[in-house]
Amino acid sequence: MEIQSSARVPAGVVRITDVAALAGVSPGTASKALNNTGQLRDATRQRVLQAAEQLGFTPDSRGRALSSGRSYTVGLVTTDSSGRFSIPIMQGAEDALSAGEMALLLCDTRDDPLREQHYIRTLLARRVDGIILTGRRTEARPPIRVPVPTVYAFNPSTDPADASVVVDDAGGARQLADHLLSLGRERVAHVTGPERHRSAVERATAAVAVLGDRLVGPPLYGEWTERWGRHAVDVLLRRHADVDAITCGSDQIARGVCDRLRELGRAVPTDLAVTGFDNWEVMALASRPPLTTMDLELEALGRRAAQLLLDAIAGNPRHGLLELPPRLVTRESTLGD
Amino acid sequence: MEIQSSARVPAGVVRITDVAALAGVSPGTASKALNNTGQLRDATRQRVLQAAEQLGFTPDSRGRALSSGRSYTVGLVTTDSSGRFSIPIMQGAEDALSAGEMALLLCDTRDDPLREQHYIRTLLARRVDGIILTGRRTEARPPIRVPVPTVYAFNPSTDPADASVVVDDAGGARQLADHLLSLGRERVAHVTGPERHRSAVERATAAVAVLGDRLVGPPLYGEWTERWGRHAVDVLLRRHADVDAITCGSDQIARGVCDRLRELGRAVPTDLAVTGFDNWEVMALASRPPLTTMDLELEALGRRAAQLLLDAIAGNPRHGLLELPPRLVTRESTLGD
Repeated sequence: MEIQSSARVPAGVVRITDVAALAGVSPGTASKALNNTGQLRDATRQRVLQAAEQLGFTPDSRGRALSSGRSYTVGLVTTDSSGRFSIPIMQGAEDALSAGEMALLLCDTRDDPLREQHYIRTLLARRVDGIILTGRRTEARPPIRVPVPTVYAFNPSTDPADASVVVDDAGGARQLADHLLSLGRERVAHVTGPERHRSAVERATAAVAVLGDRLVGPPLYGEWTERWGRHAVDVLLRRHADVDAITCGSDQIARGVCDRLRELGRAVPTDLAVTGFDNWEVMALASRPPLTTMDLELEALGRRAAQLLLDAIAGNPRHGLLELPPRLVTRESTLGD
Repeated sequence: MEIQSSARVPAGVVRITDVAALAGVSPGTASKALNNTGQLRDATRQRVLQAAEQLGFTPDSRGRALSSGRSYTVGLVTTDSSGRFSIPIMQGAEDALSAGEMALLLCDTRDDPLREQHYIRTLLARRVDGIILTGRRTEARPPIRVPVPTVYAFNPSTDPADASVVVDDAGGARQLADHLLSLGRERVAHVTGPERHRSAVERATAAVAVLGDRLVGPPLYGEWTERWGRHAVDVLLRRHADVDAITCGSDQIARGVCDRLRELGRAVPTDLAVTGFDNWEVMALASRPPLTTMDLELEALGRRAAQLLLDAIAGNPRHGLLELPPRLVTRESTLGD
């Protein structure tokens, strides 16, 4: 690699004086035309706008920011930007914010509280207009105290006065249980992740409530892994050989369940119906058969969080917990071919 | 949700006048102390710094930005922020930039050229100090022409004068082929993705070159899916029943290969060794058995791209293609238990 001299000089930067010169007006007049202020003839304003267009002039948004007291920038603080939950949320937020001409500053704390504090200070020093906080778990987190609006996405704040947007996990689990009952299943098992995870417990509790005595035995708690799904099948069939549906707390578990059932020669869904949770496509679609599951609608969640933040920045803050409904996606694991 | 009035007033913003008042100096003196300029007694400077610390004063970085002509901000333009390739790159870049007190502005173009143009204009209007461009494919992309330094990460620029940082796919495929040969495998097949994808062709070409007449038949091109991996096993075993290793262009394909071999009662690795590519852990670790594969080291790639950009911003731009070596990860699919 050699030294490249061309990138040193920002030759392409067009200044307002260039625009004024091409339009044949003073820089002050050009500024008024571009900022749509002052008294100008329409023809003059048009000439300046055409000159700006022709030269590819981009106004310096930092000037606008300083004069308005706003930076038109929002910070997104995530505990885990590589997580499959954080990413669609980030994408949805970015989408909603860019539509409002706001830029998104990304900060990944990697679950480190010191790193989070550093980032919050950095964002405040940059005078962000607001902050979205998101993480990969659904447990509530302690709030941050900052002088700009905040919204918590996916993992809510422990303070009910904060604005938090989360997935309605219980509602999703109820929809799946109703779906299995509507298909005539009568001996249903629930297999899920660790009992210390709020999402596992919320989904299990809702499934128990809907299924009642159609549930064979208590929920089986384990890991969020395919391996646990495979193992749980062996446990279940030993205890309840006549189970006719298994509703799982995640797509990974459900995929493991389907794999083990196939190895044992049990047909899905004719013999046993299986459901997942998350609609993580790399699991749900690769499963044999593909999984009926709940789509968490995380991109919509990210958009909604960003909209709440924009509202708060505009002077209409809200508070409280907003639960967004996930969406039932039906596939072969309950419906067959 | 109700109106929350507390978020309206930025009561917590500490101003330099507050710091000056607490330190018992004029705002001008406080400013000199905080910016480390002017002639001040050490004791005065210390008093101001302590007052700032005590009040949690954060200097407005926009002022610093305007006076230095820099924004201390870098744009990251990705075609696909949900992709599993873009994310670790983004994470690595964010890590390297935040260490240098630079903030990362995230832009997701969703593979839309118009959206990309819009974002580039937005970033220039915000006077970013530089731009990193990344995407989910390894095909070279047309360069952007902007008056600030740029670095291309993962998918290189078609212009050899630009700075591009990519994965050495061919080197990775050679390492895997060498690994299989070192284990004494003599009848090796290569199964990979679509022939129109540069990464598939580069990996296949390198495997062919190393394996020579130990390769049974030409590379099998297909899809980046588990399903294709399963299907390819049937094709291969019909043509070459005595194949003793299958090197795959991706972990997804390799996982499908392992699944089908197990269904056919063929033992991995004693009967056939299998390798993947990517070290996508959700595939490589969930595979039965877990996969020997190449880790693309994408986070390191993101860090390197950010460092090259910081160098360019500091006045030391480089140009040309920099290929970073991926890393061999050995697991049970070649080594056994």
